[in-house]
Amino acid sequence: MPIQRLITFTTDFGVTEHYVGVMKGVIQSINPGVAMVDITNAVQSFDILDGALAISQAYNYFPKDTIHLVVVDPGVGGSRRPILANVGQHQFVAPDNGVLSLVYEHEERVSVRHITSEHYFRPNVSNTFHGRDVFAPVAAYLSKGVDAAKFGEPVTDYVRFLAPKPKAAAANMWKAVVLKTDKFGNLITSITPRDIPQLFDGSSHSFKISVGKSEITKLCASYVEGAQGELFAVLGSTGFLEISLNRGAASRMAGADKGSEVTVVLGGEQ
Amino acid sequence: MPIQRLITFTTDFGVTEHYVGVMKGVIQSINPGVAMVDITNAVQSFDILDGALAISQAYNYFPKDTIHLVVVDPGVGGSRRPILANVGQHQFVAPDNGVLSLVYEHEERVSVRHITSEHYFRPNVSNTFHGRDVFAPVAAYLSKGVDAAKFGEPVTDYVRFLAPKPKAAAANMWKAVVLKTDKFGNLITSITPRDIPQLFDGSSHSFKISVGKSEITKLCASYVEGAQGELFAVLGSTGFLEISLNRGAASRMAGADKGSEVTVVLGGEQ
Amino acid sequence: MPIQRLITFTTDFGVTEHYVGVMKGVIQSINPGVAMVDITNAVQSFDILDGALAISQAYNYFPKDTIHLVVVDPGVGGSRRPILANVGQHQFVAPDNGVLSLVYEHEERVSVRHITSEHYFRPNVSNTFHGRDVFAPVAAYLSKGVDAAKFGEPVTDYVRFLAPKPKAAAANMWKAVVLKTDKFGNLITSITPRDIPQLFDGSSHSFKISVGKSEITKLCASYVEGAQGELFAVLGSTGFLEISLNRGAASRMAGADKGSEVTVVLGGEQ
Repeated sequence: MPIQRLITFTTDFGVTEHYVGVMKGVIQSINPGVAMVDITNAVQSFDILDGALAISQAYNYFPKDTIHLVVVDPGVGGSRRPILANVGQHQFVAPDNGVLSLVYEHEERVSVRHITSEHYFRPNVSNTFHGRDVFAPVAAYLSKGVDAAKFGEPVTDYVRFLAPKPKAAAANMWKAVVLKTDKFGNLITSITPRDIPQLFDGSSHSFKISVGKSEITKLCASYVEGAQGELFAVLGSTGFLEISLNRGAASRMAGADKGSEVTVVLGGEQ
Repeated sequence: MPIQRLITFTTDFGVTEHYVGVMKGVIQSINPGVAMVDITNAVQSFDILDGALAISQAYNYFPKDTIHLVVVDPGVGGSRRPILANVGQHQFVAPDNGVLSLVYEHEERVSVRHITSEHYFRPNVSNTFHGRDVFAPVAAYLSKGVDAAKFGEPVTDYVRFLAPKPKAAAANMWKAVVLKTDKFGNLITSITPRDIPQLFDGSSHSFKISVGKSEITKLCASYVEGAQGELFAVLGSTGFLEISLNRGAASRMAGADKGSEVTVVLGGEQ
Repeated sequence: MPIQRLITFTTDFGVTEHYVGVMKGVIQSINPGVAMVDITNAVQSFDILDGALAISQAYNYFPKDTIHLVVVDPGVGGSRRPILANVGQHQFVAPDNGVLSLVYEHEERVSVRHITSEHYFRPNVSNTFHGRDVFAPVAAYLSKGVDAAKFGEPVTDYVRFLAPKPKAAAANMWKAVVLKTDKFGNLITSITPRDIPQLFDGSSHSFKISVGKSEITKLCASYVEGAQGELFAVLGSTGFLEISLNRGAASRMAGADKGSEVTVVLGGEQ
């Protein structure tokens, strides 16, 4: 008996619509009983970078050979290709619009195929819902053990973009951006320890981070270290620097949100 | 070993409450391990038509013999009957308030029973939560293979209403309505190709659709065909005409929402 | 073959984030195929009482030996302990911050352990996401049959608080509070039949309940008994008195919400 492979969902179809339920129905019709887990279906509508962030932060916690459906697909019905990507120990089924870019960044082994074998699609493919008609059935057949090579030929010109990185703006000064605000109001910035290691290296430097109407000068190791009502920086579980508030919404206090500019100025060693 | 049957959920209990979780607990207590899939739990509160739309657009993508729990039940604790409906190749457990009306429309074979066998209910049935006390346990026993006939007698006077259809208002003029706005801001109208075939038959006619403060004169085959910032009509994956915007929310641009009037005026053949 | 045990989720991680998906990935990596059910992930951020209410109202509908993950954890990264609680016929994995208080109230048999066996954690435990690094893997190993005693030593000084109870404010007068507003707009108060039995004992007394800008003088047995546009009291499925409106949002009509004061004045026997 073959091991059942898991299928995950990362989409912008929302948590209030029947669209993801329909995809799951299609999958269960092809491979009854296959296990399915939502990563998130609340990717910002049409926002490929937001989807790329979500899947890149989650896929690696799943078992190897998991099949990840990633459907943020504003180009549905146009010329963008459906792809099947083997990346590291995981498989991804997605539109070829860059939504897997940040996954590709994490792994050495990337091989991508253009999905063209229409007999794995639903009959009468619509122009508006390839999640249902193309991506879901392909994931279902993959989960049944159909070999990747059966779905189409390898391509090397798949779409990939670079994650937004902080830019040096002057000596000891960087400009970055808020990538997203999470449910707690944490402002997740585009800054990682690789970008500005001095920020994270044991507080040997003073710093000033400006975002919205606030200035942050303190780095904490956890949320609970933050003083009441005081914004602070913390290396979040996502690997990015977050601006946070202990038991409160930093986004509200700072008056900042997704897309807000973040300025980092580093002082001298203390 | 019998094949495990799937149970789906279509309710107005919300995505933020514990109510659906409790129903799933009840089901797992009766039939441990049975597979469960959410269609949507975000039906508008008390809105039977909204629930009817959701289940009618989703059920048919699930495997045959799926058991669909449909609990939009503003009449809970009153005289409305709980029913078990065999419709086409699927089974439905729901209050008899019309929430299955649009499912009945799709299928020739409809047989409905009034659920009266209280030994399949939870003890001490409440007046406020039959999802937990009546519908969930009935679905669970069905999934274990209990025959439909065991739950109660057939009835033929079950409640059904007609879906809102466009009405002819003058020569070449129809009045329709926005049935719902989806997560992307698409305005899903009550118009189908059966209602006004001339709208969909290869653009041999010019037309003007008015909704909110906007006029639409273009039919696209996909979202991606729409020009930047321009509203257009498209036959959506739900089978209804949608008013949409490429990578944007048509609802916001048109200033329209669920319940808004939609006027279609058809021009001559071009 | 051992019976598969179910794992449930009650968290404040939200329905829009990837955090719960990541926890599920961690669990599936340790115990592939284990069944998982969401109770709710929409507990108010940082709100331990809200989480305590959610789990206490839901756990008992699940099969015995279910493992309940309850992660409302504003103290993550601080000194609060992770605990494993055997309560009645269920197991709970949670931070020791009182989030299980209302579960403890329901059951005679309570035994709590401080989770200290780090080899059941993920390597490199973060300071910001113990849901992923501590609680999820512990629940996964429990579901594989690891004995509770392996995770740490019993403790008796675990945190517990009392649920807010109505307070007598004068003769025949009580002050209570709205514990939460549900998705339908029902105002769920802190009043139970044990607190003011005269309210529920067959309407032998007249009463006046004041909440927000409204006064309620009627007790209904079900929502559907309420007259159009009239607020009424009803014993809800949660075991608490609710202020409700038939097919409408009581919260909006009363201008009240979570935290609003509720005053009950009891009249003489009629």
